[in-house]
Amino acid sequence: MSNVRVAAFSLSLDGFGAGPNQNIDNPLGIRGTELHQWFFPTKAFSSMHGGPEGESTSIDNGFAERSFENVGAWILGRNMFGPIRGPWNDDSWKGWWGDSPPYHVPVFVLTHHARATLTMDGGTTFYFVTDGIESALTKAREAAGGKDVRIGGGVSTIRQYLSAGHIDEMHLAFSPVLLGEGESLFHGINASELGFTVSSVVSGERATHVTLAR
Amino acid sequence: MSNVRVAAFSLSLDGFGAGPNQNIDNPLGIRGTELHQWFFPTKAFSSMHGGPEGESTSIDNGFAERSFENVGAWILGRNMFGPIRGPWNDDSWKGWWGDSPPYHVPVFVLTHHARATLTMDGGTTFYFVTDGIESALTKAREAAGGKDVRIGGGVSTIRQYLSAGHIDEMHLAFSPVLLGEGESLFHGINASELGFTVSSVVSGERATHVTLAR
Repeated sequence: MSNVRVAAFSLSLDGFGAGPNQNIDNPLGIRGTELHQWFFPTKAFSSMHGGPEGESTSIDNGFAERSFENVGAWILGRNMFGPIRGPWNDDSWKGWWGDSPPYHVPVFVLTHHARATLTMDGGTTFYFVTDGIESALTKAREAAGGKDVRIGGGVSTIRQYLSAGHIDEMHLAFSPVLLGEGESLFHGINASELGFTVSSVVSGERATHVTLAR
Repeated sequence: MSNVRVAAFSLSLDGFGAGPNQNIDNPLGIRGTELHQWFFPTKAFSSMHGGPEGESTSIDNGFAERSFENVGAWILGRNMFGPIRGPWNDDSWKGWWGDSPPYHVPVFVLTHHARATLTMDGGTTFYFVTDGIESALTKAREAAGGKDVRIGGGVSTIRQYLSAGHIDEMHLAFSPVLLGEGESLFHGINASELGFTVSSVVSGERATHVTLAR
């Protein structure tokens, strides 16, 4: 079955999915990287980004690996693709991930500014979608060919798809940190009214993994 | 050492400490009792409220029991004491807990409306404090005689003491539910800036126990 899902999305215990003041030096906002301390030591991470091979048998790694399984297309907000705001000045920015991004499938980037499709090494193609979240989802579903569409983030993008009722399943990784400020995932969104209930809560090595479904 | 602490305080995974629309039928707000499903099966609960003896060896019970240890005085918001709003019409309301409330120490109830001190069975005395949270804390510290002051709740009371910088330690029990709406503990409060960090995260049988300290 093809689901629209959020997976391996990190939150602080006070509910923030990114810190404040995102910029090129702090792509996840100030202290935002603290949210992902559970992910960095996993084999899933090292497989994507190189470096010494990470933990392959941890609970955290299991969740990280499953987050990539059966994903046929991604949708990303523009700020997750890069730090540039406003019109694209040129095509030099090709994402945070180098020549061979860890997606390996079509990735639809939400933006208000048109840009030519970008074909990267390893099967990743970035499509820039300027006509809204519904259009991006339609395109992503088509591209996914029956597999899942993963809404990669950031917080604002997930909130838009949540509010529109498009997300079927969410795996959230609560990291043992308090950010105090930043981008709240749920504030002002009634996840219960949207039909979500808690499917499972699993204590990992460095995060508490919560799965929500409806 | 005498600490001001919050303990065994239940939250939903989306950060609510009570549901909306508190009233006499829903003292914890709509669906608020779902937050406390971890507590009801414990021996700590049955010791307080009677009924068949609860679990004595569970992780959840350990946290519940420790929440009562070394507590010399409590502070409660008025809505936690009862459903009556505005002036006390008479003295017939004596709390939700019957003749012998499970506190057994002085309890300071924050209210805007004066009322005579209420001496209950089993060592609980309710004092009604009309001159603010600082005054209540001073009185509670004195009454506690070197033991801890426990801020029992509800959410609004904890938020006031948090914002004023008076809370030293918090044990929060995250229940596996989404409330969607209600009273958010942290919204608009920067727990990190207040100096809190996460001391521990422990997976219990029916809740995830998070301890914050500063």
